[in-house]
Amino acid sequence: MANTKAYAAQSETSDIAPFEFERREPRPDDVSIEIDYCGVCHSDIHIAQNDWGVSVYPVVPGHEIVGRVTAVGPRVSHYKVGDVVGVGVMVDSCRSCSACDAGLEQYCLEGMTGTYNGKDRHDGSITFGGYSDQIVVAEHFVVKIPEKLDVKAAAPLLCAGITTYSPLRHYGVKAGDKVGVIGMGGLGHMGVKFASALGAEVTIFTRSESKVAEAKKQGADHVVVSTDKAQMKAAAETFDFMLDTVPVPHDINPYLRTLKYDGTHILVGLLQPMESYLDSGALVLKRRVLAGSLIGGMPETQEMLEFCAKHDISCDVEMLDIQNINNAYERMKAGDVKYRFVIDMASLKSA
Amino acid sequence: MANTKAYAAQSETSDIAPFEFERREPRPDDVSIEIDYCGVCHSDIHIAQNDWGVSVYPVVPGHEIVGRVTAVGPRVSHYKVGDVVGVGVMVDSCRSCSACDAGLEQYCLEGMTGTYNGKDRHDGSITFGGYSDQIVVAEHFVVKIPEKLDVKAAAPLLCAGITTYSPLRHYGVKAGDKVGVIGMGGLGHMGVKFASALGAEVTIFTRSESKVAEAKKQGADHVVVSTDKAQMKAAAETFDFMLDTVPVPHDINPYLRTLKYDGTHILVGLLQPMESYLDSGALVLKRRVLAGSLIGGMPETQEMLEFCAKHDISCDVEMLDIQNINNAYERMKAGDVKYRFVIDMASLKSA
Repeated sequence: MANTKAYAAQSETSDIAPFEFERREPRPDDVSIEIDYCGVCHSDIHIAQNDWGVSVYPVVPGHEIVGRVTAVGPRVSHYKVGDVVGVGVMVDSCRSCSACDAGLEQYCLEGMTGTYNGKDRHDGSITFGGYSDQIVVAEHFVVKIPEKLDVKAAAPLLCAGITTYSPLRHYGVKAGDKVGVIGMGGLGHMGVKFASALGAEVTIFTRSESKVAEAKKQGADHVVVSTDKAQMKAAAETFDFMLDTVPVPHDINPYLRTLKYDGTHILVGLLQPMESYLDSGALVLKRRVLAGSLIGGMPETQEMLEFCAKHDISCDVEMLDIQNINNAYERMKAGDVKYRFVIDMASLKSA
Repeated sequence: MANTKAYAAQSETSDIAPFEFERREPRPDDVSIEIDYCGVCHSDIHIAQNDWGVSVYPVVPGHEIVGRVTAVGPRVSHYKVGDVVGVGVMVDSCRSCSACDAGLEQYCLEGMTGTYNGKDRHDGSITFGGYSDQIVVAEHFVVKIPEKLDVKAAAPLLCAGITTYSPLRHYGVKAGDKVGVIGMGGLGHMGVKFASALGAEVTIFTRSESKVAEAKKQGADHVVVSTDKAQMKAAAETFDFMLDTVPVPHDINPYLRTLKYDGTHILVGLLQPMESYLDSGALVLKRRVLAGSLIGGMPETQEMLEFCAKHDISCDVEMLDIQNINNAYERMKAGDVKYRFVIDMASLKSA
């Protein structure tokens, strides 16, 4: 058992603060990792504050983890000491159901084990995430970070990256497709990069005229101000796909009408009821599809990293010392980050 | 111009009553048809009563038409006098857009021309439907009724049949799939027949215990009473497809939870807002799909008729004299028909 320095939330209302615990003794198929960087995801805030009512305290958030292998168990075959590796949103699953067999561990019929606030399948303990100096993870849930990638900017690929890459691939987005991206945060800006790299013509939808310049800077071919009725009318029936990264309830009916027949609106950010009535006619009359997608499976996560290396894609990040995490949360709530905070874990070690 | 006996609604509040008008002079690609039977669809009531706010009076409803060819224009190549043919929900489209080119005329980018209450693309007149003794329709929108089919029971296939067949085929329902059907009306009972013929294991969902026997009579392998929480819980994550034929707003969230990951909920009956909040999480967490589908294209409609002939499928019908159409509407509103009224047009001719 290895003593581990970390930052944790001790209750719904407490700040994220220093915390120490013991990582488990590595099992035969485990990889031990010294963490160098950890991205900060909105889910970290939701679980730290118990917004979803499932939090078990203390909570050590963090599921966009990059580090170096420090030890491997006797049954580990793909990794060796010194390898630069990543860990994303999950650290285990049943590994024997139809979903796991298909490499879609995120849809494990028994439920995946989250990287934090999950329940270890072997000893029942609550998992602790990447706001810590080390982690022990089964090899199957570890990915290799391609050498070509900047490790700092690679960390958020493990959640924000795969969450947008997976549905674009699943639905076969290809050259010439017209793709709209709703939401300009960590997920949205990755969606723009992936859709562009796949050859699609990309349009960012923003509610505010003031964000048009920033949207263009993100690499969008076009920008539509969604509050402008004339612009939305002009966009009617022109899109093949809509990648909707907005994490709060919003009316999707106006966006559905911008899809061509057979067009697909993909939800990746919203996990709660919509708070507006879905217009069924917008689906029926044009055979449109409303779909959800959750992160991505392990094989696809590795594929996404290779894709990023090949197409020179990374996340736009702002580096952070862990001591400033509470301030970072406040800034994220205010939408004040372009586009992902990444904690430099050297700050934890030197504390 | 041929004088045509018909039944029409003259206003939102008037009964369906005798009416005469002139059918157009046949164009070179037109087929003239003497109507023998016409199914009665819920849309007939909606348009007759202007429920959708788009009705132009007088309205001659009817878009489940079967009859015999009495004349063909010089450019008609697939039909000859005496052929038994059908006409469904549409009688024209632009015939040159990507949807029309794909045989999906119902999604014509310029809008299909409805069999009734549509606007003729050539002369701008309002189309009159099948509650009449004859109709003139462009060859492309005419289908051949296979000899093996009972013509009376074939009429509703042109709307109720194709509306349920098309999405089951589009989404590739196959042997061994578990398919749920919601709604036990004209559409629902056809969905059960098609899904069964495709080899699926079919479950009917009904809100009432009292309908279980009738549901089994429809040929369902299983019945789930959707108001029984224990039964719905037992059905969780067990279905590949849900065919939802309910034409009025209803909460689909409980049904979404009965779908496996990657499962698809297909809406074919509801054209209006849902009046309950869609649970986005039910889509995202299991990569589920909510899709709409509208009737079917012309090639697929012909394919559906051949499929019915091959698998001995027809609609369960109750025959009706046109003089009783208003009473039939009342019974349909009360759900009192198993499962489709079909007008015997001999009653019109003898009136």
